[in-house]
Amino acid sequence: MAETIFSRIIRGELPCHRVYEDDRTIAFLDIHPLSRGHTLVVPKEAAATLDALSPESAAAIGRLLPSLCRAILKATGAREYNVLQNNGAGAHQAVMHVHFHIIPKYPDGSGLGISWPARKIDDEQGTSLAAQITAGLEALRPA
Amino acid sequence: MAETIFSRIIRGELPCHRVYEDDRTIAFLDIHPLSRGHTLVVPKEAAATLDALSPESAAAIGRLLPSLCRAILKATGAREYNVLQNNGAGAHQAVMHVHFHIIPKYPDGSGLGISWPARKIDDEQGTSLAAQITAGLEALRPA
Repeated sequence: MAETIFSRIIRGELPCHRVYEDDRTIAFLDIHPLSRGHTLVVPKEAAATLDALSPESAAAIGRLLPSLCRAILKATGAREYNVLQNNGAGAHQAVMHVHFHIIPKYPDGSGLGISWPARKIDDEQGTSLAAQITAGLEALRPA
Repeated sequence: MAETIFSRIIRGELPCHRVYEDDRTIAFLDIHPLSRGHTLVVPKEAAATLDALSPESAAAIGRLLPSLCRAILKATGAREYNVLQNNGAGAHQAVMHVHFHIIPKYPDGSGLGISWPARKIDDEQGTSLAAQITAGLEALRPA
């Protein structure tokens, strides 16, 4: 994987507003926040996208999220928030090293803007697609 | 926590296009997808928001995400995607039981729409806020 700004933050070569660090993860404030308290959670393992991350690093991030979200809500006074993880430039990923955004949403509207043009699923196509995903999941599951 | 439609899906009282299930988690296609392959990952533990979820359930979801994302990419042919978890009605949460969306993003633009009105952080305020979050995290960490 190509070197990114997050590799340099993880190695301590660049400063950050760090809020948490352990063997597998580091969390720090986004330098270009969408709202006050916008925090990034980054695995130390270098993987560009979530599908390329080890289950161990992904589990470590998952385990950290609830307490980190509580601490952000407590520090900011926010009551609502979004957790977002983008994969690919077309999906709004700017740094090609996995990161989870925790973005407080405030009554003034600041935070993540989302558009949600959902449609009803086609049940027949859904059954077929779910079976395909399950098949791929079993094939890809580590032994 | 109030009963939701996801409690009934978990108990098998309502059908779903299931793609994965284990002791802690269930994953199924969203019935109102933003794009083809839009999948929900739901902890069986009943918690309305991520900050109220146990670290064990959150770790189980984290551990599942990479292989599930790979399987969705493989089945759909998508190359980019967003993982989104909303907390609070003002942050676009519709069902009050924790769920992670995996939303493929396609070249035709279908998928999650995001607006990103970021500003540069105020470094002095950032230092103070990071310290507050860290303090809250330590106070809240389980013994």
